[in-house]
Amino acid sequence: MQTYIADIAAHVGQQVTLRGWLHNRRSSGKIHFLIVRDGSGFIQAVVSKAAVGDEAFGRADHLSQETSLSVTGTVRADTRAKGGYELDVHTFEVHGDSHDYPITPKEHGVDYLMDRRHLWIRAERQAAILRVRHEVINAVRDYFNGRGFILCDTPIFTPAACEGTTTLFPVQYFDDTTAYLTQSGQLYNEANAMALGKVYCFGPTFRAEKSKTRRHLTEFWMVEPEMAYAGLDDIIELAEGLLTSVVARVLDTRKAELAVLERDTSKLEAVTGHFPRLRYDEAAKILQDKGLPFQYGTDLGGTDETVLSEQFDKPLCVTHYPSDIKAFYMKPDPERPEQALCVDVLAPEGYGEIIGGGVRLDDYDLLLERIKAHDLPQDAFEWYLDLRRYGTVPHGGFGMGIERCVAWICKLDHVRETIPYPRMLYRLYP
Amino acid sequence: MQTYIADIAAHVGQQVTLRGWLHNRRSSGKIHFLIVRDGSGFIQAVVSKAAVGDEAFGRADHLSQETSLSVTGTVRADTRAKGGYELDVHTFEVHGDSHDYPITPKEHGVDYLMDRRHLWIRAERQAAILRVRHEVINAVRDYFNGRGFILCDTPIFTPAACEGTTTLFPVQYFDDTTAYLTQSGQLYNEANAMALGKVYCFGPTFRAEKSKTRRHLTEFWMVEPEMAYAGLDDIIELAEGLLTSVVARVLDTRKAELAVLERDTSKLEAVTGHFPRLRYDEAAKILQDKGLPFQYGTDLGGTDETVLSEQFDKPLCVTHYPSDIKAFYMKPDPERPEQALCVDVLAPEGYGEIIGGGVRLDDYDLLLERIKAHDLPQDAFEWYLDLRRYGTVPHGGFGMGIERCVAWICKLDHVRETIPYPRMLYRLYP
Repeated sequence: MQTYIADIAAHVGQQVTLRGWLHNRRSSGKIHFLIVRDGSGFIQAVVSKAAVGDEAFGRADHLSQETSLSVTGTVRADTRAKGGYELDVHTFEVHGDSHDYPITPKEHGVDYLMDRRHLWIRAERQAAILRVRHEVINAVRDYFNGRGFILCDTPIFTPAACEGTTTLFPVQYFDDTTAYLTQSGQLYNEANAMALGKVYCFGPTFRAEKSKTRRHLTEFWMVEPEMAYAGLDDIIELAEGLLTSVVARVLDTRKAELAVLERDTSKLEAVTGHFPRLRYDEAAKILQDKGLPFQYGTDLGGTDETVLSEQFDKPLCVTHYPSDIKAFYMKPDPERPEQALCVDVLAPEGYGEIIGGGVRLDDYDLLLERIKAHDLPQDAFEWYLDLRRYGTVPHGGFGMGIERCVAWICKLDHVRETIPYPRMLYRLYP
Repeated sequence: MQTYIADIAAHVGQQVTLRGWLHNRRSSGKIHFLIVRDGSGFIQAVVSKAAVGDEAFGRADHLSQETSLSVTGTVRADTRAKGGYELDVHTFEVHGDSHDYPITPKEHGVDYLMDRRHLWIRAERQAAILRVRHEVINAVRDYFNGRGFILCDTPIFTPAACEGTTTLFPVQYFDDTTAYLTQSGQLYNEANAMALGKVYCFGPTFRAEKSKTRRHLTEFWMVEPEMAYAGLDDIIELAEGLLTSVVARVLDTRKAELAVLERDTSKLEAVTGHFPRLRYDEAAKILQDKGLPFQYGTDLGGTDETVLSEQFDKPLCVTHYPSDIKAFYMKPDPERPEQALCVDVLAPEGYGEIIGGGVRLDDYDLLLERIKAHDLPQDAFEWYLDLRRYGTVPHGGFGMGIERCVAWICKLDHVRETIPYPRMLYRLYP
């Protein structure tokens, strides 16, 4: 019967058997200290000659990093121990050797580690990030499920190149057909919202980005809620609620992981209540007043987003971008049609956009006009136009990139560590 | 302020505003009955001339199917009403017209409906299936999350054609590289289990199947748990726990949807406790005794699975298939090496395999031998071999196809209705 290190507190004074791997080892000569990990946590196992006998004591001195082993012993609370508990070992059994494990406690380069990602994820820091990712994803799902949203998976194979082909991955779909890997489930989400009211999709999305930046992956996960009968305020409030809920959950349940990552949690604790809002016009003025070379009418660049978000402790909502730089399906503000009813949420601490969304164009004639003006193939959009033909309603939603969100919450330099097997321009292995 | 039909019970005697679509309409001359849907449910809204006035009463008589509208009125409990409540309408407002809605209450062919899937999902039956799908997926996630499993997304783009290229979708991955869309996250899951102990992945998987059957999609969702330090009994118990938990959840929370689908729930209520188990040898004997043309040593066919599963009220676990017909990574039974430590779970009522899994080969030398015997490119498997080089442990898991599971729980003839936008051999639109 295996006990997990995560549950060790319930077994103080009892004999348990842990099954895991040797993470590290040191010795005082008379006692060997084995740091054992089992995936759920780390614990120090204390091996003394008196307890295990000469032969086993000698073997323990030669165990190498990542040897797999079962360790049986008595759990002891120890306030000095990392995690608060130690194991006094009675016996141990080796399952698999590990010679010359390639990732040692010394420093390795990122490419070296990425080539060994299947092993690198065993490291304390990487495992902590993946546990935070797990928690973020579950918090996102719980948030939407708890508010009556229905998960409605949108297809990965899509029939048409909707927004230009430069960043699309084409796939030959039997015989003569070409499919494209989805970049967003939004158009389908809109149809789903007309059927189920409040929906979300949550799956991998793909961008054939040839740029190498710290914020781009070719394959990344995105959650996209969509609501029928929603306006811009509803969308912003949903985004505020989502981020505060996700951050609170990670703070609540992943303290140990944030400590491993040396995350300054006071920055996260500030993420509550309503977020500051700036219209694009106001944002532009701030950037120009600061002397940045920002040109009114263009999209915010990475630096612009960083400068703006650094003005605030909380995520920042930037609204009403020029319609010209937003997607064809964005609804214009009736009061200023040259601006869109849209919102980008910029994460604090310079992390830039993590959420983008808005109100969708619900007028058939105007949408058709836009499709033509954008030189999009009308045929491919007939089904999408149907949503305006048959009982159109005001509606909207947003998309949140999970990797960017995790990078911010963990305060990482690069999104590549936020997913088990990142896919980038020159990275398809392992 | 919008009230959802799903929450209507809390508003009896109150005035509320519903926002939705006109599903259907009938009239007694003096009273119009509008069946309104808002995505969360259906309700009958009663329009009388006395309450709304002549002009509105006249308009209500001309509302067409799928017109979008807001309806304000008083909620009344009525045991005769479907759902138990009706709305006495005070006013209503039309948002969007709907002329000649293409899906009428009359019968349509499947191809016709599939071409209009973006509208078809508004139908009561289709929406009910999608809500069951939502519940199944959430029950699956809750099951694993509640047992200490960490969600660990495995990549969609994979570098090597691992199990033959005939059913793989290749994608040009920049310049000269070819990536393949994943068919299973399992190999990566194994690496993740060595890092995090108990893990699962849950995402879309792809099969370029040229066959048209009622059980195949080219794009389908699969959940795959993997456990370090697990044997065949652990895997079977995990599968039993998963299925009983999922079925219980749907029975508990989706009664209304199962009623819409006219599902015989007594069949689902039988899915509890431990499941019957048959070794492949025993299964073969049953089939041969029944006079089926089953050849010992071959895989079970669809008919074989149907016949076997019909012998039992519960899902059936078939174990110990011949190693030769299972994947290269399956661990042989030490007591009968020609058989694999594997399990397929066949759903009752003739639905066939919904779960497949087993113990993985954890011995380096034997795995390498198998990779060579299967003519697989050793280079591409070096990282996978690393898992046996550095602290190998007994481990295993399984995969469950969501669409097949939903088809069984809803008792559908074809998996194509279990996913919002099915992708099949000749189906990529909408």
